[in-house]
Amino acid sequence: MRNIRLTIAYDGTDFHGWQLQPDKPTIQGEIERHLATIHNQPITLHGAGRTDAGVHAVGMIANFQSDRDITCEALRKSLNSMLVPSIRILAVDSVAHSFHARFSALSKTYRYTFFNGTILMPRKRLYTVHIKAPLNIDAMNACLQFLIGTHDFASFENAGSRDPDACSPRGSTRTILEAAITHDGNQFYSITLTGDGFLRHMVRNIAGTLFEVGTSGRSIADFKATVAAEDRSAAGPTAPAHGLTLEKIYYPFCT
Amino acid sequence: MRNIRLTIAYDGTDFHGWQLQPDKPTIQGEIERHLATIHNQPITLHGAGRTDAGVHAVGMIANFQSDRDITCEALRKSLNSMLVPSIRILAVDSVAHSFHARFSALSKTYRYTFFNGTILMPRKRLYTVHIKAPLNIDAMNACLQFLIGTHDFASFENAGSRDPDACSPRGSTRTILEAAITHDGNQFYSITLTGDGFLRHMVRNIAGTLFEVGTSGRSIADFKATVAAEDRSAAGPTAPAHGLTLEKIYYPFCT
Repeated sequence: MRNIRLTIAYDGTDFHGWQLQPDKPTIQGEIERHLATIHNQPITLHGAGRTDAGVHAVGMIANFQSDRDITCEALRKSLNSMLVPSIRILAVDSVAHSFHARFSALSKTYRYTFFNGTILMPRKRLYTVHIKAPLNIDAMNACLQFLIGTHDFASFENAGSRDPDACSPRGSTRTILEAAITHDGNQFYSITLTGDGFLRHMVRNIAGTLFEVGTSGRSIADFKATVAAEDRSAAGPTAPAHGLTLEKIYYPFCT
Repeated sequence: MRNIRLTIAYDGTDFHGWQLQPDKPTIQGEIERHLATIHNQPITLHGAGRTDAGVHAVGMIANFQSDRDITCEALRKSLNSMLVPSIRILAVDSVAHSFHARFSALSKTYRYTFFNGTILMPRKRLYTVHIKAPLNIDAMNACLQFLIGTHDFASFENAGSRDPDACSPRGSTRTILEAAITHDGNQFYSITLTGDGFLRHMVRNIAGTLFEVGTSGRSIADFKATVAAEDRSAAGPTAPAHGLTLEKIYYPFCT
């Protein structure tokens, strides 16, 4: 029995998120279905975390147990030939038995992409949120810098079950390791957040609140107070799902 | 009464092509519908040409007659607020009465985009054709260079009504002004063709035949013989629609 790790990219547009749901297309569901065909038995895939409906990924990690005598390269080709083109297996690796995509994860990077110009070209629309009002990017970045470190992020947590992405119970306290806005050219920008874990809708709620700061609907001081309030109603709206991409998941070197 | 020119970008994925068809979503149909709302009367839009179902555009041109007292900028904003995000009006201009999007056009540039690597990332899949077999790009480019000039392109014309994109009857003879393959980085390539007119499926049939040359299924000499044959059955298959983008339409300076 081998422990197989998958590195996965997907366009979340047409899916009801990562997690398996009966009678709805999900990324986990699609991959498990084809793994079952290849293995002639049901396979359970352990994802590093959930992504919401419409959220994309370029570096999702998942693992499963395989008793099939097939090379990693053959498995990658086989899966990609069966899967829809909106899901691609980027890599297949045989890893230590101790590796678990969720419990072994140290941190994750999410990217939220937006366009702050007049006309968003059609082929960018599925991956980019269009903010028409001029944004004060410097003010937004100042707020982001304030997030670096350990905070109780209850103000940015939506109701719903918590993704247990760490072993120990830690409430809504998380540590943000890196946070920045980058200008990707031609009025495209990305908010990038790396942290040891993220609460439900946390990145989208931070983005939605930052857009209020950017359009002067909320001051930098108010943003800081919002974090301190530890109250969801203090923050701004949840930004749309399609701007969000799970970029990368970090593991200890030994796994 | 003013003659209004629209410059239009669209993602053709969800449309049955440019041209109006009853009970099917088309780009012309969508824009005409909103123009009718703005003008309180039916509006006929004259497109520079047709694009097939699934084909994209970043520089389609169309014109129509308007009796409404509205600025071009207000019209652009109004249309974009009504249209789906997969269609964007890039520019609205009031032009000379002699201008006609189709009859005034001198030439057009089409771009056919493909990927010649192992894994096509999901968010490129709607705009790029994946050719998995290694391609001899130099051989393909040699064939393209041979196309420059005036030829009878009957070998690359599919059956169906001809798009009357020039005033005079000229059968299947067209002049190619520029032709090249460019490497766009990371194993993405584009075939770019500029000509005074294009027959039905002509760019896709040229691309499909070039892919046969690239995979050594057809020699450069055979490609030249295919052009000379003036017979559709001599050429390769029609390459998929979603790789094709109408890039630009050229008009005389005075219009």
